[in-house]
Amino acid sequence: MADATPAPAPKKLTKKELRILERQKAAAAAAGPTLTDTYGELPLIQSQERPNKAYKSYTATIQAILQESDQVSRPMIKFAAGVPKESVVDVFVTLIVPDSPVLSTTQKDVELKVEKFFVVSKALSELPFQVEDAARPDAIVKAEGSTYVNVGLETRLNTRPLDLRTPANQCIMRIQAAVGQLFREFLIQRDFVEIHTPKLVGGASESGANCFTLKYFDQDAALAQSPQTYKQMACAVAGLERVFEIGPVFRAENSNTHRHMCEFVGLDLEMTIKEHYHEVLEVFSDLFIYIFDGLKERYAKELSIINEQYPFEPLKYKKPSLIISFEEGVKMLQEAGATQEPEDDLSTENEKWLGRLVKEKYDTDFYILDKFPLAVRPFYTMPDPKDKRWSNSYDMMIRGEEIVSGAQRVHDPNLLVQRMKELGVPQESMRNYIDSFRLGALPHGGGGIGLERVVMLYLGLGNIRKASMFPRDPKRLFP
Amino acid sequence: MADATPAPAPKKLTKKELRILERQKAAAAAAGPTLTDTYGELPLIQSQERPNKAYKSYTATIQAILQESDQVSRPMIKFAAGVPKESVVDVFVTLIVPDSPVLSTTQKDVELKVEKFFVVSKALSELPFQVEDAARPDAIVKAEGSTYVNVGLETRLNTRPLDLRTPANQCIMRIQAAVGQLFREFLIQRDFVEIHTPKLVGGASESGANCFTLKYFDQDAALAQSPQTYKQMACAVAGLERVFEIGPVFRAENSNTHRHMCEFVGLDLEMTIKEHYHEVLEVFSDLFIYIFDGLKERYAKELSIINEQYPFEPLKYKKPSLIISFEEGVKMLQEAGATQEPEDDLSTENEKWLGRLVKEKYDTDFYILDKFPLAVRPFYTMPDPKDKRWSNSYDMMIRGEEIVSGAQRVHDPNLLVQRMKELGVPQESMRNYIDSFRLGALPHGGGGIGLERVVMLYLGLGNIRKASMFPRDPKRLFP
Repeated sequence: MADATPAPAPKKLTKKELRILERQKAAAAAAGPTLTDTYGELPLIQSQERPNKAYKSYTATIQAILQESDQVSRPMIKFAAGVPKESVVDVFVTLIVPDSPVLSTTQKDVELKVEKFFVVSKALSELPFQVEDAARPDAIVKAEGSTYVNVGLETRLNTRPLDLRTPANQCIMRIQAAVGQLFREFLIQRDFVEIHTPKLVGGASESGANCFTLKYFDQDAALAQSPQTYKQMACAVAGLERVFEIGPVFRAENSNTHRHMCEFVGLDLEMTIKEHYHEVLEVFSDLFIYIFDGLKERYAKELSIINEQYPFEPLKYKKPSLIISFEEGVKMLQEAGATQEPEDDLSTENEKWLGRLVKEKYDTDFYILDKFPLAVRPFYTMPDPKDKRWSNSYDMMIRGEEIVSGAQRVHDPNLLVQRMKELGVPQESMRNYIDSFRLGALPHGGGGIGLERVVMLYLGLGNIRKASMFPRDPKRLFP
Repeated sequence: MADATPAPAPKKLTKKELRILERQKAAAAAAGPTLTDTYGELPLIQSQERPNKAYKSYTATIQAILQESDQVSRPMIKFAAGVPKESVVDVFVTLIVPDSPVLSTTQKDVELKVEKFFVVSKALSELPFQVEDAARPDAIVKAEGSTYVNVGLETRLNTRPLDLRTPANQCIMRIQAAVGQLFREFLIQRDFVEIHTPKLVGGASESGANCFTLKYFDQDAALAQSPQTYKQMACAVAGLERVFEIGPVFRAENSNTHRHMCEFVGLDLEMTIKEHYHEVLEVFSDLFIYIFDGLKERYAKELSIINEQYPFEPLKYKKPSLIISFEEGVKMLQEAGATQEPEDDLSTENEKWLGRLVKEKYDTDFYILDKFPLAVRPFYTMPDPKDKRWSNSYDMMIRGEEIVSGAQRVHDPNLLVQRMKELGVPQESMRNYIDSFRLGALPHGGGGIGLERVVMLYLGLGNIRKASMFPRDPKRLFP
């Protein structure tokens, strides 16, 4: 990891720099390791001095050459050759134009002639894997006759900070940040207020299942499975009207799949509606268009770097977003030969199948599936006013996988209690939530987006762990 | 909570509206409650229809008058009089200019002549407290001879969604959102990347004390006391260089004070340094100036509404921020007669005292206290290179109370292990963290800001619970 290259390279040290180097050498002499005027191990950067050199950080890669010369001695070369890969170094250089373009780096038309070479932080000589191996596209690693090392996902995740050094991972993390930022930007423009709701809750947040539980002093607590009840109270009862939250969501679900994690980042929104829950759907439609457009326009460089290691098809989407009813989805599946009951939830397989059918018919990778069967949705989902089989609820899909689940909510406390009874949901720990609607409540709806799922599906990464900095699944709690 | 007032008020219903009203009446007739053409209880808004009326939301208050007339019958007045306070209503009105200004509302020069009056959601007739009581300034409630009801903090928090309806609370929540937004805006401008680190960690995040613990399938886990180790790995080892995170922080500390909560929102940042940790201090100084300026410039209205209920002195701050050394702070305290050992931490009392002394001497409510004694800081704090008594660490204060704690961190794995041994910190659960620095690490520093503390102290609220939407303390886990 080359770093901290002063530009242009000073030919002569200033008096201040000389004085500092003298002191560094004296300190190092006491400590032991090599340190001369032109190379060696710097003493620990402990904020001893502040020469105020000009620094620039690069995410690009560049070739640096160390060649014996008047300035570069044989011991210096020997020293540099002994420095392990991935160490942090501070080099003084002259910029030169190479005879022929450098093929192995992102900067091909220039290279660096190293004149001084200091180690800031030394890596181990033996690393769990080489970053250059971890950065190679699968198509090359797994090609017939390839002798390249295949760095598996488990190996990567075990030493995730090293794995994150690959150019693709640096950019995936920036795309993850970008999705959150675009989400916020859009909602703030639409008068949404950011809220923070508690993750430690008395009783489970939706139902008792799949909740991490713990002792909270003398009380029993759980980790919130979603900000659902709190964002509803903030929006519809406290009267903030339009709220959003970005925060962790916890699911004690023993699912070892490519798309489940036990902790992920929820992008949640909730808004009052005046007449119809499609007001919410329209916000979601515009929101996703804003996110997709924003990624394409502002993050082209990051997307192209990710594409080099993990090739993916650019996402296709409609403006406005395509909305089809659950009923129509079922019909499309049945006509294609799938087994799908009208009021059953979609299996993962049928969800993907329907994604392919929608892509064929409508040429979009993103769509909204509206009016789910009431039976497959949580108790707080508003039933359809005309046909009790359906509900005012929806999912949103990218490349045939769900990334949002949402609905108009029941804001009437009596209907809420009735629905809880029908579904056998215990009211005890939900008392504050139910009672809040007796304070007068605004009709409202919303939904929750899984951040890592959006990143995984947009980039076609195939595994949600690749879209999370430090993923948590039933087996992984470290690092 | 008046809501959803169409403007201008239609004199005649359109055919579509008439058709809808007919259907609503038919539906209501089946259900039971009163519903005529001009007043009554609307059927549950379940997204039956979408007449696309024009709606505007108001946070302002306005007087509405219901007077017997050709349009307004006696039964209608009787119906309206029976609707409990805090219910959500939908009214059709004519805007009129009152004979004399209305004193009790924010809109004084206009009032509404109600022609139709419908209930959307009915509140209970008996509420735990009246919002108008909760909205009254202490100075009036507690004045001699006052007969006003004093709504205590416990009562408010027990029914927090109702309490949040006061104008001051609406604005406090918006100021909380604003601080987070200004924090992000500034850091994104300075090339910071937003990250999300896990809250479920194997072992305690700093030390074992004050950690909420839980079972994670078959493993023992804890809730992160801070994103400390993860943000360091992301910044200094993974090489993202400048990172920030906004997320919940959990402390199982049995402190029942005005400024402790068991769950709060951490605004964390971590950045690589080139030469000196004061690079971090300068970012913090600029950051807080950006936040304070931003609040003053963009949120004047919210601040003035809060000020009406909770009067506070505008915050004084310097540009650049004042930095004084811990040593100087101790000297100021000692000279003022306080008992303060040079290498002891500041007690809450002395911290406040020093705040007053700094205000007197430097005329600022915000300052940075630099170079804390090494003995009072965590193991990962970089020792001062010249004097082992001190460390490269700092706190930041608003009105004499700490809102940030931060430092240059130890990026050398050997020194890290040595410091852990010296302080008796078990290495077992920190293995991934320690080992990550053996991959080569960039010198770095950072700090964590308590969001609710900033809001409490900026606004002079006197209790952190007032700055949190749903506060968590050792006794409070609901709502």
